[in-house]
Amino acid sequence: MIEVSIRVIYGDTDQMGVVYYANHFRYFEQARGELFRSLGGSYQQMEDEGFMLPVVEAQCCYRAPARYDDLLKLKVWVEEIKRASIVFAYELRRDKEEALLATGKTVHVCISKSGRAARLPDAAVRLFQQQRADKKEIEAHG
Amino acid sequence: MIEVSIRVIYGDTDQMGVVYYANHFRYFEQARGELFRSLGGSYQQMEDEGFMLPVVEAQCCYRAPARYDDLLKLKVWVEEIKRASIVFAYELRRDKEEALLATGKTVHVCISKSGRAARLPDAAVRLFQQQRADKKEIEAHG
Amino acid sequence: MIEVSIRVIYGDTDQMGVVYYANHFRYFEQARGELFRSLGGSYQQMEDEGFMLPVVEAQCCYRAPARYDDLLKLKVWVEEIKRASIVFAYELRRDKEEALLATGKTVHVCISKSGRAARLPDAAVRLFQQQRADKKEIEAHG
Amino acid sequence: MIEVSIRVIYGDTDQMGVVYYANHFRYFEQARGELFRSLGGSYQQMEDEGFMLPVVEAQCCYRAPARYDDLLKLKVWVEEIKRASIVFAYELRRDKEEALLATGKTVHVCISKSGRAARLPDAAVRLFQQQRADKKEIEAHG
Repeated sequence: MIEVSIRVIYGDTDQMGVVYYANHFRYFEQARGELFRSLGGSYQQMEDEGFMLPVVEAQCCYRAPARYDDLLKLKVWVEEIKRASIVFAYELRRDKEEALLATGKTVHVCISKSGRAARLPDAAVRLFQQQRADKKEIEAHG
Repeated sequence: MIEVSIRVIYGDTDQMGVVYYANHFRYFEQARGELFRSLGGSYQQMEDEGFMLPVVEAQCCYRAPARYDDLLKLKVWVEEIKRASIVFAYELRRDKEEALLATGKTVHVCISKSGRAARLPDAAVRLFQQQRADKKEIEAHG
Repeated sequence: MIEVSIRVIYGDTDQMGVVYYANHFRYFEQARGELFRSLGGSYQQMEDEGFMLPVVEAQCCYRAPARYDDLLKLKVWVEEIKRASIVFAYELRRDKEEALLATGKTVHVCISKSGRAARLPDAAVRLFQQQRADKKEIEAHG
Repeated sequence: MIEVSIRVIYGDTDQMGVVYYANHFRYFEQARGELFRSLGGSYQQMEDEGFMLPVVEAQCCYRAPARYDDLLKLKVWVEEIKRASIVFAYELRRDKEEALLATGKTVHVCISKSGRAARLPDAAVRLFQQQRADKKEIEAHG
């Protein structure tokens, strides 16, 4: 599990004065990318090796609005990992606040460059499983 | 139920060569707006009368990619309507094709300008219920 | 010269209650795409034939705000065409109004798939020159 | 003059595999916001005090593409400041590289909440002038 900081820009807001609902999914992707990097690789690397992880399902629950200039903290972790799919989960908060602004989930499948379903590369599975184990340990001691 | 046409622009795609997953939610909003208009009002009107319908949950299942320059057909209808909330459902296809590209759902609550939960205006409820009845009739005869 | 209709969605606005300044460039691209189509081809076709037209300069003057739910009319035409570059110009108005909301310009160069500068395909040049001639005739008789 | 770091996300790219041209203007805004903050205030504060700085002109020259996962460095400074308007300038590079990816400029006017042209608040003028002086000193000694 990692936590990334996101500063809300004007372009993310809408006329209700809050972050437009589709933009949370951009934030989720930003956090996913940092999670890959924190594990010593990058999503780009995985694509370079011939694997892609397109989203097959995305979901977000909006509990409270995020606003312009807010400094957000977005937690992301691997919720589940299978042979050919992976689930990431997200929790969005304002910096130094406990209250959840949003929670989310994205489900990804692994495909090869030709577009066929593929098994996740072993290295990726090991990394993500390790990351899951770390998260459980944090929770047990938290 | 209505169906809106959407032409995919370059700015909607990502380097995978497909519509970026967050942009489907922009399409959903575009369709919702047209649904309001087809019922003789507009979402802006509702805001002018002091009511807002922020999204509290959004979900999308991606079955097949939409691509640049595709002409998409997006169906939207009211799936459920309660005192203070409303659920819209969505089906995305390529023009003249049967295969689903994506399905989605957005849940909205009604709030007053002061930000408090509010009952949906009676006029809106009547319109949406009528629209639901029409949809069932279409399905019964479809 | 063609004119395309654009309905402003919520996601295009920002907390100032107007269309966010970067989104005008999305509108410009949408109009460019329709201009290609009106000439009997499509930008995608050109890419399929191995040519791309990346933007090397973009500019927009904002005279008055566009707002949520506005029906906009965006004019686009070829302002200039050279061996390896092409300039499009834009005028944005609200439907049935004379006042300009914005004017813009984008400059594109032609490159081959390998990324090298290339001459514009002859067919494209002919089409765009014809389109310019048509525009001048419209102006002369307007 | 300040420099902000920006990590390119997937959602910023398009099917050409590069950052979509409209998104540079989102980056510019992010940098502007940080410039305000670096001066001890924030753009939000200015809005809270009743002043807004809408963009009246925006321009970007694209020299080389930015790509997914690139760590970008974006410089922003006040190019010019007048009674009721302010010009920001931008230079975009990849981290640790000298080559320019893009340069840009945005012109803003000051308006009051009622939408009328207004003089820039004195405090803001002083801050921005100081910032310009600092930049010149850096250049003189650079």
